[in-house]
Amino acid sequence: MSLMWSVKIVGLGVVALSLSLELLGWVFGRCRRRRTLNKVLFFPSKVACVEHLLSQNSACSCFCPLPHGVETSFSCLLRHILSASSSLDLCVFSFSNMDLSRAVLLLHSKGVTVRVLSDKHYSAITGSQIGALRKAGVATASHPSPCVCVRCDAGSVHMHHKFAVVDGRQLITGSLNWTLTAVQSNMENIIITEEAELVQPFIKEFNQIWALNDPARFYKS
Amino acid sequence: MSLMWSVKIVGLGVVALSLSLELLGWVFGRCRRRRTLNKVLFFPSKVACVEHLLSQNSACSCFCPLPHGVETSFSCLLRHILSASSSLDLCVFSFSNMDLSRAVLLLHSKGVTVRVLSDKHYSAITGSQIGALRKAGVATASHPSPCVCVRCDAGSVHMHHKFAVVDGRQLITGSLNWTLTAVQSNMENIIITEEAELVQPFIKEFNQIWALNDPARFYKS
Repeated sequence: MSLMWSVKIVGLGVVALSLSLELLGWVFGRCRRRRTLNKVLFFPSKVACVEHLLSQNSACSCFCPLPHGVETSFSCLLRHILSASSSLDLCVFSFSNMDLSRAVLLLHSKGVTVRVLSDKHYSAITGSQIGALRKAGVATASHPSPCVCVRCDAGSVHMHHKFAVVDGRQLITGSLNWTLTAVQSNMENIIITEEAELVQPFIKEFNQIWALNDPARFYKS
Repeated sequence: MSLMWSVKIVGLGVVALSLSLELLGWVFGRCRRRRTLNKVLFFPSKVACVEHLLSQNSACSCFCPLPHGVETSFSCLLRHILSASSSLDLCVFSFSNMDLSRAVLLLHSKGVTVRVLSDKHYSAITGSQIGALRKAGVATASHPSPCVCVRCDAGSVHMHHKFAVVDGRQLITGSLNWTLTAVQSNMENIIITEEAELVQPFIKEFNQIWALNDPARFYKS
């Protein structure tokens, strides 16, 4: 076998090996990226204490009669909402659940920018948390910004969405209104996903409804 | 260079090449599989004629005053429902939309197995299509099986789900009840996905609620 022939074979081997290594790296990279979060939660949720998630005092011990240390659909939902580190965009038809309201206010106290869109009719009913959130949004010396901004949809028959976007990348959506009945009594579902094809349209929808309900549009002379 | 050395190099080249080819095939296979359907539809939908989708006469011309040949969120939803070739499992809180009812009955007439779960309270309200679907489910000589089977949830406060599973692989879920107001007036969302991690839990949930509401359970002596 000539020297040139051997060189060609060695070259071919090296090219093939490097190609294989490169492909392996690409494939492993894809696999790592592929583990996109896709989770489904069903309700009614078992009732359990969630004080450890909502208390600002991490060493707090709760003595309420509810079961403790139990992972439920609701505690899982709370964990995902509380995972927000920069922003929470919330677009929900009916919001009267106290624990979810506490979660939103806890995020606010940590400096997370919270924007809340709700239905104009349901935001005024007894037990609605929209008023409390709106109140928390008033800029103070201790929290000049970011704050909780609340807008109610004034256009359609019902703003019937029930979704939240956490940090602009995680979508929480489904049939579940943010009420106690929905969490503890009804059959409901929640999808939690980071699939960009699903998340991005919801971000666009939120921004459109948010802009459409800018109070400045209604007070123009 | 010895003959044995050349054989080793050739062997290495062949192994590396075959590895590369195998990896390439695997990668392309993944890429093909990766194109999983993930779609979001928002409502209210533009109002347009959907007669061409619902008519069993493909040559039918509709002369109604609605716009024709317009693709809307609703026509897209209808297309996905009508794509069912073997089964449609429907779990919906409120079902009064005539066009969606016609779509379900059209699938039934084509031999698709349809199972419908609805809320016990809302299935009895004026305009509900549950009665018509239940009626269509009566086995006849021309349609001994498969048929439309309807069960109403008799347990929870509200069976508030709004999802459908097409052919056991495509999930349609969101905030949208199957009503005219939801389609034409409200702000609503629908996710259409074939992500197995999202579809499979809904199939399991459907089967559980279906079994829980088997009339045979309530008539046991």
